[in-house]
Amino acid sequence: MPAPTISTDEVIAILERIRAQHTLVHCLTNHVVKNFTANVLLALGAAPAMVEHADEAAEFAAMASALLVNVGTLDEPQITAIRRAIPSANQARKPWVFDPVAVGPLTVRTQFAREIIALRPALIRGNASEIIALAGQTGRGRGVDSGDSAENALAAAKILAKQTGGAVLVTGPIDYATNGTETIACANGHPVMTRVTGVGCAQGAVAATCAAVANSPLAAAVAAATLMGVAGDLAARVSTRPGTFATALLDALDQLDADILRREAKLT
Amino acid sequence: MPAPTISTDEVIAILERIRAQHTLVHCLTNHVVKNFTANVLLALGAAPAMVEHADEAAEFAAMASALLVNVGTLDEPQITAIRRAIPSANQARKPWVFDPVAVGPLTVRTQFAREIIALRPALIRGNASEIIALAGQTGRGRGVDSGDSAENALAAAKILAKQTGGAVLVTGPIDYATNGTETIACANGHPVMTRVTGVGCAQGAVAATCAAVANSPLAAAVAAATLMGVAGDLAARVSTRPGTFATALLDALDQLDADILRREAKLT
Amino acid sequence: MPAPTISTDEVIAILERIRAQHTLVHCLTNHVVKNFTANVLLALGAAPAMVEHADEAAEFAAMASALLVNVGTLDEPQITAIRRAIPSANQARKPWVFDPVAVGPLTVRTQFAREIIALRPALIRGNASEIIALAGQTGRGRGVDSGDSAENALAAAKILAKQTGGAVLVTGPIDYATNGTETIACANGHPVMTRVTGVGCAQGAVAATCAAVANSPLAAAVAAATLMGVAGDLAARVSTRPGTFATALLDALDQLDADILRREAKLT
Repeated sequence: MPAPTISTDEVIAILERIRAQHTLVHCLTNHVVKNFTANVLLALGAAPAMVEHADEAAEFAAMASALLVNVGTLDEPQITAIRRAIPSANQARKPWVFDPVAVGPLTVRTQFAREIIALRPALIRGNASEIIALAGQTGRGRGVDSGDSAENALAAAKILAKQTGGAVLVTGPIDYATNGTETIACANGHPVMTRVTGVGCAQGAVAATCAAVANSPLAAAVAAATLMGVAGDLAARVSTRPGTFATALLDALDQLDADILRREAKLT
Repeated sequence: MPAPTISTDEVIAILERIRAQHTLVHCLTNHVVKNFTANVLLALGAAPAMVEHADEAAEFAAMASALLVNVGTLDEPQITAIRRAIPSANQARKPWVFDPVAVGPLTVRTQFAREIIALRPALIRGNASEIIALAGQTGRGRGVDSGDSAENALAAAKILAKQTGGAVLVTGPIDYATNGTETIACANGHPVMTRVTGVGCAQGAVAATCAAVANSPLAAAVAAATLMGVAGDLAARVSTRPGTFATALLDALDQLDADILRREAKLT
Repeated sequence: MPAPTISTDEVIAILERIRAQHTLVHCLTNHVVKNFTANVLLALGAAPAMVEHADEAAEFAAMASALLVNVGTLDEPQITAIRRAIPSANQARKPWVFDPVAVGPLTVRTQFAREIIALRPALIRGNASEIIALAGQTGRGRGVDSGDSAENALAAAKILAKQTGGAVLVTGPIDYATNGTETIACANGHPVMTRVTGVGCAQGAVAATCAAVANSPLAAAVAAATLMGVAGDLAARVSTRPGTFATALLDALDQLDADILRREAKLT
């Protein structure tokens, strides 16, 4: 296999920039995961902020270094806030990342997702079923679970990447990052990560953080997959029970450094 | 004392069905406990989802295997979503479970609670004051605390069970499950469970999960009491300090199996 | 240096009253920290409740022993609820505490903050940038981070204290409590407390709890700084990684007693 064009060294550089800048990330995300998302970003060394009033969301999207949009518990006020925050981020040339939670089986968010991807997210992060549905194909998702494999979603991911001009990260046992022409696989991570709510959603927030400081959307996608995956590997050595694992995952994000990433990253 | 008609073996069968099916549970619950509720269901082996837009809540209630309605932070949009989700669940013949948090002293939720119990929840789970208030009697609750004993609430619980045709689970140091004619007591659990927010609310979500796969509402109520109670007993052996206890509780839910339940369950 | 007029013994008396009364605290706070705030109050021995519907918020503010207002994720329904809850608390002679999260750079909350401080909070808790902005001066905050030192904010804090007739707690590496004429410093706490979301917001809830039972707003401010600071010191001896630290902080709040507070408190 050829060496990936995004190397572990680039992931390390992204992490170091996040910590040096305490990258400020505006998260418009779902109610279930707000606390965990904030703790993941803080543990990584970034600065999360959730600003939800539509007027303030527009104001803050221009101030922060990146914007995350996650539609897990989408409601009408959030639709209004997102519709104002994305153009504000775009105008200020700040990247925004889209996490299309449960897009496919649910009507309102599916229509809304198709509306907003026209605003060109730097990165889309989703499981296989969400990516397939977002590309307008037929998947087998049932809410937050994916009934499809990441491998099957790759074709849809490439279509979306070309359509948006950004990158797509399809998550699963192996995560795939693609910009439509190049695809990089990240084999880090552990099944217990699916037993803690918000690990995937927090990875979307990590992706937004990385997008603020990376040289390309593809590098941000690879970094998000690697940072969460390696932290998951470390934490699973502490415990594979979901309560202690979640705590250990936050500790591991804090602990990540160049040596650990060089030793653990599985990029191909 | 006669042996209870719902045995530990039936609780074990319910747990095994939940894990085999990854039972999908729609939770319309309060803001404080969404994250913990999702983690409790994931640790148990179920699949939680919080879908809150009224249109989607109606759509999703028919897709999920059960619906939880918890009014802890009830607001107008949630009232609208609940009014659409319950009939959708009922029409799709999916059970819904009601957790009447702080019903009694607070006016809006008390009126709303009386409105929706006419839609016949399979199961109502509440502390003594909530159950007494829901049945239209005078209690001593002050918000989420119960000023009344579970024993005193049993008469109210039986009235509600007969009125709805379902079961009622009255929680306290001993939990009582009744379908109006038969009552089963579960003596598992530990006082530190009241020092972690959302343990009771998550038990309501566990009850909804059990209702999706149980042979009767009474069996679901007994299973919810036993699964949370035994997990609480195991976790309290790890720690009775609230932070480490909460983590240990999630680990214990993951760890529950037939042997542990046979050894620990205290049903009479 | 003269001995502070609020002694460790007064902090101990406040803690003992909270535990004896299970002080009921109404928290109108932000979405990110509701769960952690509730767990902090439960660990301390208080009884938190989040009641958010405007009609019920007004009703409950008169029933609870104190009210917390935190504008971290302010939206229109919360503005409505807060506008009704504060006068209700004031009329029932229950103290309310204000946490002006990210006031300064964001327009809606800054105008709203200036509106509600006319309703005379017993206590205002914020970082240096927030306190400077709230007093109408120019700070350097960027969302939830403070770009200013607590020492620089002391003049602004004294102005606000005199304006409201209450106390102000300016948090930072050293916390300063002032009633406008007297200022007490609390040097407890550890930098890892800034790596866990909601520690500051939960301190605001602790301040509300203390205000319900303290002899003066200044005593409540000193107690809130000391209780959270000492718990942070204890927890940081268990771990300075953010995941395990957060868990240890809840355990430490549960563990606090007169001996620990006498040994650890750093009031000057």
